[in-house]
Amino acid sequence: MPTNRQILLDNRPVGEATAANFKLVSNDTPALADGQVLVRHHYLSLDPYMRGRMNDSKSYAASQPVGEVFQGGTVGEVVESRHPKYAAGDKVAGFGGWQEYSVVDAGQPGMLKKVDTTHVPLSHYLGAVGMPGVTAWYGLVKIIAPKEGETVVITAASGAVGSAFGALAKARGCRAIGIAGGADKCKYVTEELGFDACIDYRQHPDVKSMSKALKEACPKGIDGYFENVGGYILDAVLLRLNAFARIALCGMIAGYDGQPLPLANPALLLVNRVKLEGFIVSEHMEVWPEALKELGALVGSGKLRPRESIAQGIESAPEAFLGLLKGRNFGKQLVKLV
Amino acid sequence: MPTNRQILLDNRPVGEATAANFKLVSNDTPALADGQVLVRHHYLSLDPYMRGRMNDSKSYAASQPVGEVFQGGTVGEVVESRHPKYAAGDKVAGFGGWQEYSVVDAGQPGMLKKVDTTHVPLSHYLGAVGMPGVTAWYGLVKIIAPKEGETVVITAASGAVGSAFGALAKARGCRAIGIAGGADKCKYVTEELGFDACIDYRQHPDVKSMSKALKEACPKGIDGYFENVGGYILDAVLLRLNAFARIALCGMIAGYDGQPLPLANPALLLVNRVKLEGFIVSEHMEVWPEALKELGALVGSGKLRPRESIAQGIESAPEAFLGLLKGRNFGKQLVKLV
Repeated sequence: MPTNRQILLDNRPVGEATAANFKLVSNDTPALADGQVLVRHHYLSLDPYMRGRMNDSKSYAASQPVGEVFQGGTVGEVVESRHPKYAAGDKVAGFGGWQEYSVVDAGQPGMLKKVDTTHVPLSHYLGAVGMPGVTAWYGLVKIIAPKEGETVVITAASGAVGSAFGALAKARGCRAIGIAGGADKCKYVTEELGFDACIDYRQHPDVKSMSKALKEACPKGIDGYFENVGGYILDAVLLRLNAFARIALCGMIAGYDGQPLPLANPALLLVNRVKLEGFIVSEHMEVWPEALKELGALVGSGKLRPRESIAQGIESAPEAFLGLLKGRNFGKQLVKLV
Repeated sequence: MPTNRQILLDNRPVGEATAANFKLVSNDTPALADGQVLVRHHYLSLDPYMRGRMNDSKSYAASQPVGEVFQGGTVGEVVESRHPKYAAGDKVAGFGGWQEYSVVDAGQPGMLKKVDTTHVPLSHYLGAVGMPGVTAWYGLVKIIAPKEGETVVITAASGAVGSAFGALAKARGCRAIGIAGGADKCKYVTEELGFDACIDYRQHPDVKSMSKALKEACPKGIDGYFENVGGYILDAVLLRLNAFARIALCGMIAGYDGQPLPLANPALLLVNRVKLEGFIVSEHMEVWPEALKELGALVGSGKLRPRESIAQGIESAPEAFLGLLKGRNFGKQLVKLV
């Protein structure tokens, strides 16, 4: 049995998360029982939602248990199988966590999915053609439900969710405006991802300045907003909403570390008769096939060219994750193990 | 032509609204042109939304023009008609404003509606079987859309919207919890309106205390919330929401006078995957017939016994309105003119 290096949640963060919250251990992979397969992970997915799970409090995902392998999405290859539907060499996506190998009860629904790497690189099944892509799809299609010509805005536009959102919005004839941190990311958002404009939040660090930038980028106001961040950017967006605007509330990473960030003027939700909906994409499995079909076609045809930030080796996962929380990634953050 | 006493908006409030913002004047009613009717108002409706219209800023209703008759709902009797569908003696509901008479272009759709006072007193067409009743209906039925057995909560529970909300919620098998100011109102909300419990916000003047009271009144959490008030009560409700709760955002009277009141922890909307929607009932005219039918039946059968606070005489309208904004009314606030 191969040695399996794993990263555990060792203790919960007090305030900001740090590398000391994690612990690297080594174990032998256990022998397989009937119905199980052994998967060697090629990539680990690092996602902002994981920060919420590190806390013990009620969060929008269940808590990550202390002392156990840190949970998360993975793609890899079957190296040994005692399940009739899987064979060594199959490429698979699953939820194996931060470790080099996982033993999966392959018969349980939703545990493992074979993926086709003919037109879509394996790693993209953790990004544009995986959970982040479906997240963008659900927020745009099911909550914002834009009409052609409407203006939609997304924060963290250069990331995995943002890049899919842009391609999906442009495919629907929307004006797509991104918000991202830094000139390089903004350039990528407009030139590579096809957004109509991108606002660098580092140049607009307060509500007044951001609101002015949004006014320029959205001369007809904002009809749909996809929220990944929270804080002052949400306050600024509220000042630019059109009547009957829709807000898909997906993440509020700005407040994960400590005190809740207030919303300055909730009455604007009434003034503009806004519809706002918080969601977790894993609770809407019924849309995944339709969403993945569209996302796979966009990647296959080159209309969606997602960028990846790739850290090397299991030991790099904690630092790469902490960087993601600070916006140091550029595109989908992955850890490459093979 | 009879003399017509009118109340104008004389100037806009700076901060809190005061009686000095209004002005009483007298005019002769003009002679009728073809297609017009002269209505003598029996009751004026006083409603919280009017406060928002006194400001010049963008609000959830268009601004009330300065120097013109203060706009609002009215019921009364046709005293002279030059329109074939109306005759002297007809009881009608309309939007005649704060004056004793109005001249109405009766042919324009939505200006005037004949009402049947056989089973429903005329004044109730400004309350339970009028705009406030339909407001409750829309928020409950179209936004909260409760299942039998779910818990729904409303602020200003003893008012015109709240009383209708309670009857509609009980008719759907919900647990209905009111919030109101003072022991008398709370007693009325449970004993007369049929709510399962009522929380006196004066006994719970901060988030922590209100949140605790909500926990006791809603042992299974809150599935639907109808917001008339805003401020700390909304913060407390957010702490008690169940997953997939719905919020109908109808009014935020707490913030009308001055600085916006922030929402302390908007991330709870994500944590609980909440659906929140702001609405103005006049933008949903398609639901009025269905809603009014149910509301009329509830009043006719005695299942909804709305209470009214009645001020006497046109000159009493400003003070009665200012009292309404401070919660001094008990039930639907009206001004009786005849």
